Amino acid sequence: MTTDLPADVMVPFAVHVDFQSGALTPDPVILRRSHADLAGYFVNESDAPGEDEMYAVHEIRVPATNNNLLSSTTVLQPGTVGGEYFMTKGHFHATRDRAEIYLTLSGQGLLVMALEDGTTQTKEMRPGIVNYVPGHWAHRSVNTGDVPLVFYAVYIGDAGYDYATIADQGFPVIVVEGEDGPEVVPNPRYTGR
Amino acid sequence: MTTDLPADVMVPFAVHVDFQSGALTPDPVILRRSHADLAGYFVNESDAPGEDEMYAVHEIRVPATNNNLLSSTTVLQPGTVGGEYFMTKGHFHATRDRAEIYLTLSGQGLLVMALEDGTTQTKEMRPGIVNYVPGHWAHRSVNTGDVPLVFYAVYIGDAGYDYATIADQGFPVIVVEGEDGPEVVPNPRYTGR
Repeated sequence: MTTDLPADVMVPFAVHVDFQSGALTPDPVILRRSHADLAGYFVNESDAPGEDEMYAVHEIRVPATNNNLLSSTTVLQPGTVGGEYFMTKGHFHATRDRAEIYLTLSGQGLLVMALEDGTTQTKEMRPGIVNYVPGHWAHRSVNTGDVPLVFYAVYIGDAGYDYATIADQGFPVIVVEGEDGPEVVPNPRYTGR
Repeated sequence: MTTDLPADVMVPFAVHVDFQSGALTPDPVILRRSHADLAGYFVNESDAPGEDEMYAVHEIRVPATNNNLLSSTTVLQPGTVGGEYFMTKGHFHATRDRAEIYLTLSGQGLLVMALEDGTTQTKEMRPGIVNYVPGHWAHRSVNTGDVPLVFYAVYIGDAGYDYATIADQGFPVIVVEGEDGPEVVPNPRYTGR
């Protein structure tokens, strides 16, 4: 039998997730994003809601190492800015090849993904859907419904975050309110291609 | 901009999870375990149910690499064998330090965990509970309720499976039906310490 355990073995723990609200119990780490934090992300910001919360990320924090799993719930409010639905900033993983899993718990939306060469994929988000985001795909969630979009995301601890590429270039596509519902259209301000 | 994407970038995909039944859509890979597959795992097997299904694992299969996330639902039926609740075989990860996350979707049970030095931890499983299983902890789920226990598990692709250690040594503790509910008691046949 092997008993040479490393000194830093973690102790198992549990957190409760409320599938409707996305609240965690206990919930020590909450990141809140208002529209002001996303200034410049929407094409037309004349009706931007300012300091109101657009989304919150509730983290289950563990050391950000390659053997751990980071996870969080995101609660993305409904609404639009200049006809674009509320969305998260979106990012690549700093370690590009790391995958991520999204499990939608309530609400509805779209998961927009893009490679650095401008290739895009858009997938539906609704309760019970597991979205697999393979390595190399930037990912942004968009609330296309009337209620908060709540999802649970899991990713490898050393994935890291590259927000700068999306902040600089934009996403190749945006999601706008159309006459018959959400439309995924080219982003006129995308500079990545 | 970086456009030197590797040739094997995966395409995003989605799978629907039924939180009540654990069924996946699509559901190409299902591993079924009857009591016959767990012969020798229970202390007293005189009333073992034989070939009836004890649990099923529905896998979302991706390449088992360190940048991917493997995930699955497990549907563990209710029942007992010699007073021990139905349970999964339980295993260590072959790559010992890899963590795993369990999200219980329906039913109730216990997640029993053990280090190779015989240290144990037992945590409640019920809908909405995220159980964090850090690296080095063997993990087994036990259905202590009257309905199927359904949970979604996510782990790092290169974690691997070591079933042999538990098959040989047993778990340090077992979960038995007591007068006032489930009791976690020492396993008289545990040989690991």
